[in-house]
Amino acid sequence: MNDNQVTNLLKQMTLEEKVGQLVQLATPFFKGATDRGEITGPMENMNISEKDIQHTGSVLGASGARETINIQKVHMEESRLKIPLLFMSDIVHGFRTIFPVPLAIGCSWDLGLAEISASIAAKEASLSGVHVTFAPMVDLSREPRWGRVMEATGEDTYLNSEFARSFVRGFQGDLEKDPYKVASCVKHFAAYGAPEGGRDYNTVDMSEWMLRENYLPAYKAALDEGCQMVMTAFNILNGIPSTGNEPLMRDILRGDWDFDGVLISDWGAVKELIPHGVAEDQKQAAMKAMKAGVDIEMMTSCYVNHVQELIENGQLEEQTLDEAVLRILTLKNKLGLFENPYRDANEEDENKYILSPEHRNASRDLASKSIVLLKNEDTLPLDKNKKIGLVGPFANSTDILGPWSWGGSSKDTITIDAGLINHISQDQLSISEGTDIESGSDAQWQEALQKAEESEVIILALGEHSDMSGEAGCRADIRLPEVQLQLLKKMRSLGKPIVAVLFNGRPLDLREVVEHADAVVEAWYPGTEGGNAIADILFGEVNPSAKLSMSMPYSVGQVPIYYNRFNTGRPKGAPDAQERYVSQYLDIPNEPLYPFGYGLSYSTFEYGDVHLSSDQITAEDTLTVTVQLSNTSKVAGEETVQLYIRDLVGDVVRPLKELKAFEKVNLQPGETKEVTFTINEDQLRYYHSNLEFKSDAGEFKVFVGTNSNDVKTKNFHLMKD
Amino acid sequence: MNDNQVTNLLKQMTLEEKVGQLVQLATPFFKGATDRGEITGPMENMNISEKDIQHTGSVLGASGARETINIQKVHMEESRLKIPLLFMSDIVHGFRTIFPVPLAIGCSWDLGLAEISASIAAKEASLSGVHVTFAPMVDLSREPRWGRVMEATGEDTYLNSEFARSFVRGFQGDLEKDPYKVASCVKHFAAYGAPEGGRDYNTVDMSEWMLRENYLPAYKAALDEGCQMVMTAFNILNGIPSTGNEPLMRDILRGDWDFDGVLISDWGAVKELIPHGVAEDQKQAAMKAMKAGVDIEMMTSCYVNHVQELIENGQLEEQTLDEAVLRILTLKNKLGLFENPYRDANEEDENKYILSPEHRNASRDLASKSIVLLKNEDTLPLDKNKKIGLVGPFANSTDILGPWSWGGSSKDTITIDAGLINHISQDQLSISEGTDIESGSDAQWQEALQKAEESEVIILALGEHSDMSGEAGCRADIRLPEVQLQLLKKMRSLGKPIVAVLFNGRPLDLREVVEHADAVVEAWYPGTEGGNAIADILFGEVNPSAKLSMSMPYSVGQVPIYYNRFNTGRPKGAPDAQERYVSQYLDIPNEPLYPFGYGLSYSTFEYGDVHLSSDQITAEDTLTVTVQLSNTSKVAGEETVQLYIRDLVGDVVRPLKELKAFEKVNLQPGETKEVTFTINEDQLRYYHSNLEFKSDAGEFKVFVGTNSNDVKTKNFHLMKD
Repeated sequence: MNDNQVTNLLKQMTLEEKVGQLVQLATPFFKGATDRGEITGPMENMNISEKDIQHTGSVLGASGARETINIQKVHMEESRLKIPLLFMSDIVHGFRTIFPVPLAIGCSWDLGLAEISASIAAKEASLSGVHVTFAPMVDLSREPRWGRVMEATGEDTYLNSEFARSFVRGFQGDLEKDPYKVASCVKHFAAYGAPEGGRDYNTVDMSEWMLRENYLPAYKAALDEGCQMVMTAFNILNGIPSTGNEPLMRDILRGDWDFDGVLISDWGAVKELIPHGVAEDQKQAAMKAMKAGVDIEMMTSCYVNHVQELIENGQLEEQTLDEAVLRILTLKNKLGLFENPYRDANEEDENKYILSPEHRNASRDLASKSIVLLKNEDTLPLDKNKKIGLVGPFANSTDILGPWSWGGSSKDTITIDAGLINHISQDQLSISEGTDIESGSDAQWQEALQKAEESEVIILALGEHSDMSGEAGCRADIRLPEVQLQLLKKMRSLGKPIVAVLFNGRPLDLREVVEHADAVVEAWYPGTEGGNAIADILFGEVNPSAKLSMSMPYSVGQVPIYYNRFNTGRPKGAPDAQERYVSQYLDIPNEPLYPFGYGLSYSTFEYGDVHLSSDQITAEDTLTVTVQLSNTSKVAGEETVQLYIRDLVGDVVRPLKELKAFEKVNLQPGETKEVTFTINEDQLRYYHSNLEFKSDAGEFKVFVGTNSNDVKTKNFHLMKD
Repeated sequence: MNDNQVTNLLKQMTLEEKVGQLVQLATPFFKGATDRGEITGPMENMNISEKDIQHTGSVLGASGARETINIQKVHMEESRLKIPLLFMSDIVHGFRTIFPVPLAIGCSWDLGLAEISASIAAKEASLSGVHVTFAPMVDLSREPRWGRVMEATGEDTYLNSEFARSFVRGFQGDLEKDPYKVASCVKHFAAYGAPEGGRDYNTVDMSEWMLRENYLPAYKAALDEGCQMVMTAFNILNGIPSTGNEPLMRDILRGDWDFDGVLISDWGAVKELIPHGVAEDQKQAAMKAMKAGVDIEMMTSCYVNHVQELIENGQLEEQTLDEAVLRILTLKNKLGLFENPYRDANEEDENKYILSPEHRNASRDLASKSIVLLKNEDTLPLDKNKKIGLVGPFANSTDILGPWSWGGSSKDTITIDAGLINHISQDQLSISEGTDIESGSDAQWQEALQKAEESEVIILALGEHSDMSGEAGCRADIRLPEVQLQLLKKMRSLGKPIVAVLFNGRPLDLREVVEHADAVVEAWYPGTEGGNAIADILFGEVNPSAKLSMSMPYSVGQVPIYYNRFNTGRPKGAPDAQERYVSQYLDIPNEPLYPFGYGLSYSTFEYGDVHLSSDQITAEDTLTVTVQLSNTSKVAGEETVQLYIRDLVGDVVRPLKELKAFEKVNLQPGETKEVTFTINEDQLRYYHSNLEFKSDAGEFKVFVGTNSNDVKTKNFHLMKD
């Protein structure tokens, strides 16, 4: 259809039909669904009629070509104006072929592989009939207590923005032309990653300056890349729940940013305006969300039961409804659903492509690039001739897909023991649990000790089960469960080399692990090919190259901790600093256990001094930064060279360092390469106190190095008229 | 002098003399100081000449009538225009007679005693020549990690505001007429109590809505009470260090609030604009602070070295300087210093009044009202016939004055053992340390165990040494030091009743203490008469009545935790709440270990139902809330009846409860009294999203009870046209 046809379609719709487009219901509501009987729990009480369902605009969580085709078929038959359903699902880090969790992907610093992962997820999902994925999730977070910290790529605005773009490109491609693509929906707008106390859904409060400088850019980057939809956040922002937040949605999103795509609430978030205490009933909730510009209400029935009444009473303009419906119809049209309501859904191709070797290899590749080597005291890579004792609750666990992997299956998942066996003979490997995740038995201890005694090196596979992070998976204690730390110490007492391999969805307080293990491998939740990827790393088939995209805190008492913090007026360690009266803790360092950008390799790299093409820059020209990087080891390896900038004097305080660029460099043993970066004036802009985004003349520092802490530096000057 | 004379004086002053008034230096700089030689460290490099000192307007930290009189005498002789010095000092919770730390005073909920404590501090300080105290400190804080949390009265806006008023009344009285009064300087403007990560001087960031609703009211309350001065905070607020924060100082403080008194920087804070990164040198720092309206620069020399130049260069209006000087001269004039530059300084009276029995009794009284009984399993009050084993690093420690008690002396301090001996015979009491604060020896263990074995009840005097809180005294781990917890468990194993008496400057994670002790007494830092006050409580001479003015967190991973939080859209425990997808931690409760307003008594109180004079209220009338309170025990006691309100639906989210009133009620055994509160429309106002401060028509809940958690409730309706 062309735009006129879409507008004409809108004109033919009744109020009831229009409101229906704003409704999103889960699969079991629809005729043709596989499990249609199962509308239970809160869904039962939604006061939704069969007729409402018939008018409904979109479906949540359907998957599988057979089911989506069935539902669409029935719907198209019953729809008076033949308006197809939109199928939406949470495809966050893979559909059936599960990739590492986004926080791990963030640690790869590999934008190309990230794009491929999204493109494979899109292919598998689109074949099963999904049109829209609720991804990328780009909520910047400095909160390891928060369970959803695993769902975005880390603590840095720039890195998150780059990944946001990659994911959108991978999901969408050229949405209107390319096959096997899905529309993406960036979430959760806005600042959902900063809940107070790290408790999910809790209060978010910050200045608009902080919001614009740190939290908004990644959403904006996704939209700049063409992302079609936006999802509201559950949290309040400055007192107003996002889903009813007019200043945020109307002024910033639709105003400043000119976003004219579909805005959808998160699950139940329209109705949640009531418990939030800004709406007294569902009618007022509907009105506030409509006024804020929320087009689709997910899984509650405030719109379907009240929008028509609000319009008929004159409390809401029909124009507001029309705009929302037009945005939804336009998206359906962009996806070509009026011409082909099934789009790529295809049962046969599903079987052909899903979990194909190509998809699995991509997952394995990204997983091995996401695994961060935190410590290595001459222990890794492992000698393939040694006897290995694999111990721990993750020794043969398939719970390594991480949260938001509902399409993944344990039967398709390569466990760590399976991964190891692909490299060594069965009799070189003994396997024991040692303990469960949160509790253990004496029998488990004994078996583990005995088996470990007979091995030459011990791999401890430890971590959090995947429900310990993810949505509503918040922890106040971010250490490994006590029983696993005891297992570690017990194994340590055997005097054999210990390699800890960690599965977890958040930065943990790893002090005890680092103290008692000779090597520490942060595997996060590595996905379907996790066991293979870990084995690749452990045996040195892949040289580790991942770098933390989030600081590993020293302890939970240090939270929030992030690299791009401010200097304060009394920085610790400054030349004239006093001993006591500086910004510090008495009992722990200010620094995290491992900084942003940190990660070891089996190679060793040496950085030369930083060279600048000039010691000044203007708004018109660029500055070239070069550094010599050498691989001084006997192993080929990949290094992620990081460039940070500090603006020494600002209108407002400026971070100690800000990531502005990075480059991945492959070096053969003994090889040296020159790495070049370009700095422009627009990289030096920031939000001033009056919220103007601009740069100021003055002195800057540029830092280049292997992580945010270990850098070489040079100064330059921005000249302005 | 009259105002005209002050203005005329200003006109006679040279630029140099004017700038001098803006300078504040520590005592050792001045002729006549007792230790004049000791200008060392950072002070050496200030580039301040003898002539600068001669022009200086105020003195920091002098004390003792002899010294202040000497310095003033020399100064008046040398001052061309005979402008007296202002003497300022940090008199925070007592001068020589030390009162409990402000957080403890907050727990007394006793505004009258708080006023008396400030009035006694003012008397002792004024006799020794102090004119201005840098108090009250009213920084609202929800951060137990922060060391300065002990310096204000807690987490509640309303309670802090009431205490702010009491302190100002106590310090200042009728400043121009009453003897023995000092001007007060409210601090630290603004929001210093919300440092990120609980690390002192660290980033503060919040929305203006949050700032106005929670953080600003206590400063405003102090100013409404006539507080003469304001001190800037060290922190940034929304990117701008307070000391150079024009929007904060010019728009809010001097604009909205019409404050025309003296604004002083905190120690060194003007120069700290450089490390903050908003000024490139001292000259720019001086300019930014002057433009923000900071009149006095404390202890750095940006003003003295650069303000004249800035004016001569036309970068700063002389008018700005004149306004600052006029404010300082006006304060000196209010204090009558032009007529009597020594004011109340009097060596003879110092000896007569300082630490007088009256002052000591007031301190003892307030201390016993500040001590919070957290747990009591039929253990307290103690039987005076029993043999007591007093164990712990605080058993005979004089380190119970707390931070900011530099005028207090250990020789004047009543330790806990001394306090006990005032009630029982020496041979009933054995004393042993058991351990030091942070480490212990076997010999200490052994001695303690042996002595405890011979006693019938064990009092464990545990806590933090006073440097573990206070300025820059931040801790990431807020439990008692491990060695003390071990001591507790060891003592527990003896099977005797255990009473833990705690000395600390912050809410601690007390889970282990509560688990292993039969009674827990939170003594905070109780001041000069601490040992007596504790003994009064332990033996039941005083019935405990204090209530926490800050929530005791369950663990540091729960921070920030405070009672007036928001409901969120997914509150845990709501009727339709799901099991997982609610705002919660997986490993700990959402609730603190002890809530705001909590504290036990030896009496038991029973609350009747809440009665309202009407179920509705208008802007013109008031609502009367009554409740019957009975003492159902055999001991006379005092209860603090607390009234909270919740606005069920707002333009923005509203707290679950907000303290709006409280009343202290004394009840004889078996006695019942009716407690009455009045609610007005103005108590129902709040900051809307557009920052309008007003109420909305609608439903409210009123709660009355013994703490913020344990309440009875009734609804009423606010009617508006």
